[in-house]
Amino acid sequence: MLTVEEALNKILSEVSVLEKETVPIMDSLGQVLAEDVLSVLNVPPLDNSAMDGYAVRSADLKGAGEKSPKVLKVIDTVIAGGISKKEVTPGTAIRIMTGAPIPKGADSVIPFESTDEEKRKKEAPDKPILQVGIFEATKSGEHIRKAGEDVKRGATILTKGTVIRPGAIGLMASIGYGRVRVIRRPVVAILSTGNELSEIYEVLPEGKIYNSNSYSIGSLVKQYGGIPKLLGIALDNEKDLVSKLKQAQYADLLLTTGGVSMGDYDMVKDILARDGQMVFWKVKVKPGKPLAFGKMKGKTLDGKEKTIPHVGLPGNATSCMVSFELFVRPAILKMMGKKKLEKPSVKAIINESVVNDAGRRIYDRAITEKQDGQYVAKLTGPQGSGILTSMALANSLVLIPEETAKVNKGDTVQALMLDWNEEVDI
Amino acid sequence: MLTVEEALNKILSEVSVLEKETVPIMDSLGQVLAEDVLSVLNVPPLDNSAMDGYAVRSADLKGAGEKSPKVLKVIDTVIAGGISKKEVTPGTAIRIMTGAPIPKGADSVIPFESTDEEKRKKEAPDKPILQVGIFEATKSGEHIRKAGEDVKRGATILTKGTVIRPGAIGLMASIGYGRVRVIRRPVVAILSTGNELSEIYEVLPEGKIYNSNSYSIGSLVKQYGGIPKLLGIALDNEKDLVSKLKQAQYADLLLTTGGVSMGDYDMVKDILARDGQMVFWKVKVKPGKPLAFGKMKGKTLDGKEKTIPHVGLPGNATSCMVSFELFVRPAILKMMGKKKLEKPSVKAIINESVVNDAGRRIYDRAITEKQDGQYVAKLTGPQGSGILTSMALANSLVLIPEETAKVNKGDTVQALMLDWNEEVDI
Repeated sequence: MLTVEEALNKILSEVSVLEKETVPIMDSLGQVLAEDVLSVLNVPPLDNSAMDGYAVRSADLKGAGEKSPKVLKVIDTVIAGGISKKEVTPGTAIRIMTGAPIPKGADSVIPFESTDEEKRKKEAPDKPILQVGIFEATKSGEHIRKAGEDVKRGATILTKGTVIRPGAIGLMASIGYGRVRVIRRPVVAILSTGNELSEIYEVLPEGKIYNSNSYSIGSLVKQYGGIPKLLGIALDNEKDLVSKLKQAQYADLLLTTGGVSMGDYDMVKDILARDGQMVFWKVKVKPGKPLAFGKMKGKTLDGKEKTIPHVGLPGNATSCMVSFELFVRPAILKMMGKKKLEKPSVKAIINESVVNDAGRRIYDRAITEKQDGQYVAKLTGPQGSGILTSMALANSLVLIPEETAKVNKGDTVQALMLDWNEEVDI
Repeated sequence: MLTVEEALNKILSEVSVLEKETVPIMDSLGQVLAEDVLSVLNVPPLDNSAMDGYAVRSADLKGAGEKSPKVLKVIDTVIAGGISKKEVTPGTAIRIMTGAPIPKGADSVIPFESTDEEKRKKEAPDKPILQVGIFEATKSGEHIRKAGEDVKRGATILTKGTVIRPGAIGLMASIGYGRVRVIRRPVVAILSTGNELSEIYEVLPEGKIYNSNSYSIGSLVKQYGGIPKLLGIALDNEKDLVSKLKQAQYADLLLTTGGVSMGDYDMVKDILARDGQMVFWKVKVKPGKPLAFGKMKGKTLDGKEKTIPHVGLPGNATSCMVSFELFVRPAILKMMGKKKLEKPSVKAIINESVVNDAGRRIYDRAITEKQDGQYVAKLTGPQGSGILTSMALANSLVLIPEETAKVNKGDTVQALMLDWNEEVDI
């Protein structure tokens, strides 16, 4: 039987980074840049004022002080978005607002607070300001944002492979980049199999259970950036299964749940072996042993033949989700062009002992939280593979290695963090 | 001037948790449960088999072993989703598949591997199996999943206030819960102000810069679960500003960028003071000092008057994003019903010295990563408030307290993690 790493490597080797697409920058959040972004302009495009005040020649203000203001003639006002046609000549100043381009002749900006403008306004509220007293000396370049200070024309501002975050979206906008080339998101077809399954909007017939896997798996696909395509339920017979599988033919990845065990009605692995190609079946892991992986025939949007990677997940609710985290999540991330495929994990103290009598690697569901500066993993009740509450409560999977017969309460274990996000205490 | 905490508390006290809405469970990912979810059924609904094998009476198998198999009469087969009408009487067994309800009379399941079924099939491939030899004794309840083992009828399976994750969505599906009551997401109107701004799809006129704030702020709103509504650009005049602000009247939160400084054309704070109510202006923080917060008049969807919290963000690209993280993100999370409003933060060693000459709290942009078991914060180049690249590169904000005049290279600082997600190394 394959180890977790062997199985994952086989899956990843059959999965490729998807094609590029062009999307509006606002839609690109979380996707991966498919090419370097170069700037065709300087940001800011012109030298401009960092303050509201007066654009001056620093040479005019030598010796200026609170007690000895230098009085300059005010020849114009320039606001952000405007351009002054005047030039600051010796003894003159131009009133300037933050962001406005520095007028010709000026080499420095004096903020309003260091002038007598407010006093003059009070003394003669209705008159335009024709002169201003300046209370401080300045040096060339003061309170001026230089053209290209943020981004230089021709510079690479973002590199291929970057995961796009809000700051990157703002940066692209600042150079007028409205659309961006990214790796597209995978369309993931999800088919639940089993005669025992009923759709969630129906009244439950006796002997049946609700199809929960489509929803847990569908939202995992969404969470990790894929586009889930729910194909509903297939019965455990060849005809229904083959016809439902056909609906997955344009997908980038096919996930089925159930039908991969030893029973007479476990058709998925048989159909996979017959119509596609079975790469492996069974992994040395608990829960999730009867995982099947192979390739099905599919079509590209322009009608060409292609193969679709097919992960046959176990039907048990928890096995299904754990297998997804271990084997499907990395595949989706790889397809999206992401580089970091491992789950974040921490070292944690386990709060109860676990016996490993199967000789497989165990992933038990746990709540892992920091206590007194140390992570503590608390198992979420019974760990049977059908026990979905254990998974709904958990924020982590505790790893018990295959060669470890028992971990004792208080031992240090590795905890894979399921919900490693802003809501987790660190 | 208000401290960061005082300003944030004022904002949060003016912001309320939004109303409930009912959404399909697949759309509820990341939202907060507005009520407890109770189960109307047992999961699983009936005692059922955990294995493929034979449903038996344990009393029949006393003394069974590899050398002394007990032979039972096979009277039926039951598959998952089916119900056997037969009863397991002494000396009989019913073939059973995983998930199928346990037939009347049986109290245990024997897996195929512990029977001679395979041998019998080989010896007579075309004949139905009428008898089976069992190689092991068993006890009552073995390999049976009890009704209600996962969820008991009437039990609270998820509590009000829970943030919905994939496991919770699966759990709701398992009890046939197709739609769920959650706190709705806020609609956040975003208006950039400034005569200097140009839309990103236009050729840039001289003296103008592209409107990047709408896009950085819009994607931050998205990232934290809100619904951004981009209202474009307003010029720095009363008429345009008032008319554009009117488009925000149905929003839950209004964000403007720019127009909150000291300049003549900084109209936003004047309009806010005139048409709405100004709660505060200016915060002791760098970047982001000229933050304005108030309340504007708005309307509910059924035409009633309401007040809309209005955060007037600074116009500088970086100030704007930093102010969002500090003041708007917690407001959005509170509106969504979330409880944890603080950014995750870590202690980190800073890689250069920072002088705090403003007496305000500084948030410098940094890349904070683990090195040799310790977080190290590396500032992302020049920290001017217009420098958007510093923000695009950063994964964290390093906090320099207002009362600290200088931190030295090698000092320990608090780093607020901007991108605390699965892509971050921990």
